Amino acid sequence: MNPDENVHRRDGRHARGDRSRALVLERSMRIASVEGLEGLTLGRLAADVAVSKGNLVTLFGTKEALQIATLDAAVGVFITHVIAPSEGVVAPLARLRAVNDAFFAYVTSGVFPGGCVLYATANEYRAKPGPLRDHALRYYDMWYAYLLDLVQRARDAGEIAAGADPSTVTFELMAFQQAANTARLLDRGDEAVARAAALTRARLDALATG
Amino acid sequence: MNPDENVHRRDGRHARGDRSRALVLERSMRIASVEGLEGLTLGRLAADVAVSKGNLVTLFGTKEALQIATLDAAVGVFITHVIAPSEGVVAPLARLRAVNDAFFAYVTSGVFPGGCVLYATANEYRAKPGPLRDHALRYYDMWYAYLLDLVQRARDAGEIAAGADPSTVTFELMAFQQAANTARLLDRGDEAVARAAALTRARLDALATG
Repeated sequence: MNPDENVHRRDGRHARGDRSRALVLERSMRIASVEGLEGLTLGRLAADVAVSKGNLVTLFGTKEALQIATLDAAVGVFITHVIAPSEGVVAPLARLRAVNDAFFAYVTSGVFPGGCVLYATANEYRAKPGPLRDHALRYYDMWYAYLLDLVQRARDAGEIAAGADPSTVTFELMAFQQAANTARLLDRGDEAVARAAALTRARLDALATG
Repeated sequence: MNPDENVHRRDGRHARGDRSRALVLERSMRIASVEGLEGLTLGRLAADVAVSKGNLVTLFGTKEALQIATLDAAVGVFITHVIAPSEGVVAPLARLRAVNDAFFAYVTSGVFPGGCVLYATANEYRAKPGPLRDHALRYYDMWYAYLLDLVQRARDAGEIAAGADPSTVTFELMAFQQAANTARLLDRGDEAVARAAALTRARLDALATG
């Protein structure tokens, strides 16, 4: 056997594995957004996506590895919808407005049936120590740090009032995001999201110097 | 047998039943605050409180009835800590300030290890239809309506700006409460609660006409 053929065969197998993983993760993200990462089991997922449990084990390993992979994939979706669209926006305040608008659009669009997985898992694991909590907390911290950096740079650039406390502003922005995400699914619908978006815009307008 | 004795014996049995229920609910509220109402099972609880599963069934009936009773008991604790202390305060704005301060004190004091059960269950069931969601939503709505009524009466009494939109103010207050509850347990600690309490006070100060 020619070694090149061997490489091709291995690549083909990897590509098939990647497609299977992607298909399983599509489904597992939807389950996790509604029922939490605790709602994911290999058995249930195998039935849902018509893949054998043995194949799921080959693709992901343990249940915990599947849960981690699901959260990673969901954060990928978050980045695509919320962060990536304004990557080209240089001015910090303009980007801060853009990512907040994008967050509320992402929640309204119902990308995930149970709402934003980042806030869902932060809530699910807020009081449950372990690797999943550590992982969820890391993403929550990254999002906090991303927003905080924009607020700080907007202040340093003189775009928002020098007296604004960046930690407080960031806390406030995240409070509106989380409230929109919860309230929308609790029968408040898109009206709740619109209200949070309007509060966010009003807050940033009040802070803006320009 | 004298009928009076019979009544006394029945009362004694009821009193013992009530004590047992109260003991079980003490424990089930703590579990639910950390792991959610889904974390409650008759088997686990029986092991935790050293009551036979059969006795739990006698006391509560089904798992769902136990979950409902746990949420009811937790809302009782919420009312005791957050609402009852300012029942005697007549002026709506003063009472609004008092219940918000009481909420943040209740979250800081760690009455429940996993934080406020009202917000925890609203989150847990936000996207899961069924009787538990209906029940959690009813309590969330009651808290919303309680705050909204205070805001409206404060506005009608001329205590806050006539231009303030009561629904928006209520949404904002609840956003700070929920954010404090989540962030406190995500390693932000009491600093997060203090920040939310300060934002709430600042918001009400800004709206106050006096």
